[in-house]
Amino acid sequence: MRIITIGREFGSGGRELGKRLADALGVPCYDKEIIREVAMLQGIPSSQVENVSQMEIASIYTGTIGNTFASNVYFNKLAMDVMIEQTNVIKKLAKTDCVIVGRQADLILKDYNSLNLFVYADFESKLKRCLARAKAGETEKDIIKQMKKIDKERASRRSIMSAEKWGRKENYHFCINTSGKDIKSLIPALKELALAWFKDKE
Amino acid sequence: MRIITIGREFGSGGRELGKRLADALGVPCYDKEIIREVAMLQGIPSSQVENVSQMEIASIYTGTIGNTFASNVYFNKLAMDVMIEQTNVIKKLAKTDCVIVGRQADLILKDYNSLNLFVYADFESKLKRCLARAKAGETEKDIIKQMKKIDKERASRRSIMSAEKWGRKENYHFCINTSGKDIKSLIPALKELALAWFKDKE
Repeated sequence: MRIITIGREFGSGGRELGKRLADALGVPCYDKEIIREVAMLQGIPSSQVENVSQMEIASIYTGTIGNTFASNVYFNKLAMDVMIEQTNVIKKLAKTDCVIVGRQADLILKDYNSLNLFVYADFESKLKRCLARAKAGETEKDIIKQMKKIDKERASRRSIMSAEKWGRKENYHFCINTSGKDIKSLIPALKELALAWFKDKE
Repeated sequence: MRIITIGREFGSGGRELGKRLADALGVPCYDKEIIREVAMLQGIPSSQVENVSQMEIASIYTGTIGNTFASNVYFNKLAMDVMIEQTNVIKKLAKTDCVIVGRQADLILKDYNSLNLFVYADFESKLKRCLARAKAGETEKDIIKQMKKIDKERASRRSIMSAEKWGRKENYHFCINTSGKDIKSLIPALKELALAWFKDKE
């Protein structure tokens, strides 16, 4: 199977890159779809899935000793159910070629020989991207706060699953700096890179 | 000008990648040539240039206070001359399109809009590459020691020139993990990536 996973800093354009790369390769791209499916399977709203996976597990984790789950007496059953469900959904999606954005899919699909990309950018570029898609009433200050919060949560969530730190280049095959770049312009080359990468593995 | 700089971990295949990418783009690749030219201009052997740039400055640096050069009373004139000469040589080479491997060229060419790549790999892949090109009599232990030493020196030399840490993905445009990869297979896509990158900047 040819699975591409995309880790990304908030505002780096990783989602856009994933969608465009998937289109270029003619395969589906999964992002929010995973959350929606988990929500449906658990019978809870999508917003709750996002909250659970982005916040509660991380805060629970601070109550554990080191990486040991067992010692966590404050464990949240819903958070655990959502994580297990998310793992199952991702493994099910990975039965056919696809691009998966976020959700620590590179860790979940460790045995799938996925091509793992990490997309990042400098602060100014990320802020610019976030401002361009800001909701009405959101201030720059709100956005900066959100940028920091979300990346912190992502790193924290990853730390529950693995010692392989979020965003550390050693844990990915290619890291792509999108600072000041038009993501669209990189897609044909990234498509070729992905095809070469999978061909080399065959 | 289209300048590609390549930082790399020892044994990651960064030099091979640079040479192959330069060939694919039809531009020269500079690596040891820089050392040879500096040696010629300074009237000293190449080995001395390498020694100066890889060791003495770093050890001198430990005698400085923070990043302050001025406070360094142990400063080595030859080391400084070599660094200045190296900077001049690199800037001279960068007058035409080329690939430059190592020598902190990305820092020296800060105003040249160079495309800066960093090549890395896991320990096993690097050791395998180093063993394949080992000199007669070199043991695995010798090679492991050398791998650590050279990367440490590279990081140290960079720290003299900049707060932008060696190997930190934020300081490069693309980071390429060559673990278990045939570098040759990546070249067509990297060529396209480079062309797209420079086109986007025009």
